[in-house]
Amino acid sequence: MMKKHVLSVLVENRAGTLSRVAGLFSRRGFNIDSLTVGETENPALSRMTIVAAGDDTVLEQIIKQLDKLVDVIAIRGLHDSSYIRREIMLVKISAGEKTRPAIVEVAAIFRSRVIDISPTTITIEATGSPEKIEGLIQLLRPYGILEMARTGSVALERGTNVLTVDSGQQ
Amino acid sequence: MMKKHVLSVLVENRAGTLSRVAGLFSRRGFNIDSLTVGETENPALSRMTIVAAGDDTVLEQIIKQLDKLVDVIAIRGLHDSSYIRREIMLVKISAGEKTRPAIVEVAAIFRSRVIDISPTTITIEATGSPEKIEGLIQLLRPYGILEMARTGSVALERGTNVLTVDSGQQ
Repeated sequence: MMKKHVLSVLVENRAGTLSRVAGLFSRRGFNIDSLTVGETENPALSRMTIVAAGDDTVLEQIIKQLDKLVDVIAIRGLHDSSYIRREIMLVKISAGEKTRPAIVEVAAIFRSRVIDISPTTITIEATGSPEKIEGLIQLLRPYGILEMARTGSVALERGTNVLTVDSGQQ
Repeated sequence: MMKKHVLSVLVENRAGTLSRVAGLFSRRGFNIDSLTVGETENPALSRMTIVAAGDDTVLEQIIKQLDKLVDVIAIRGLHDSSYIRREIMLVKISAGEKTRPAIVEVAAIFRSRVIDISPTTITIEATGSPEKIEGLIQLLRPYGILEMARTGSVALERGTNVLTVDSGQQ
């Protein structure tokens, strides 16, 4: 199994940035497992969290090239247990009168929330580490997963470290 | 204010898809507010949720072009109150002995969770609609937001509707 890398990237909030950043990975055949991009406290900047699996040397090259893009303000590779990683999943499961109580119980065990119910379906919102989300999926699968949407990971370093305009490549 | 559009897109899980999809938006000057891409029950497919603001006519053109990409399996535009939209935010706030209790209380009111504490900072995980997340940010801002990472929105239709390989463009 290839090592998973988590990158936190501060970028300019403008059309084309996402396409250029994603293009750098795909041109080197580096498949992105998940990418999230969202607003920051500064309206001119967005923050991307990229999770990708691949060779360390190739990733080093990608980071150097990212750093050369004018859209990219700062990059940091997050390592091992030094960061907190979370994602959110919405999942719609096949559920009738008979199976509904068991599904609601599974949801409660994972501290996830039932957010919609129809006569034949139930929709759950779950938050946590990718491992926790995987665990929940395992338990829900036998009932029939009709549809799911996952955000991909968002991550911040533990403690006082902060990625800012002044951080540069680290 | 331009209307916000939410698109749910089922795509092939391979290198280059993200770059091609994002490129279609940027070439027409359509800025993407948020984009999430995550796994689905089918390992060959990923699901993107794209939130973008802009002209209806231009969006129609983009949807038609997306539909022509071989990477794109199915697209659906989600409308108004017919869907559930959620995102997750991690936020690190400046906090000392004096301000920590007040910040923890704000977190509790928003049913968000404290996930890391250092002598000078506190990190919170919050989940909800974009409006709820914005509300929390307003209350935390006076304490000093050091860093934040948002996933962007993920969305599913309410009820029994499902976007699958057979859905095509809707």
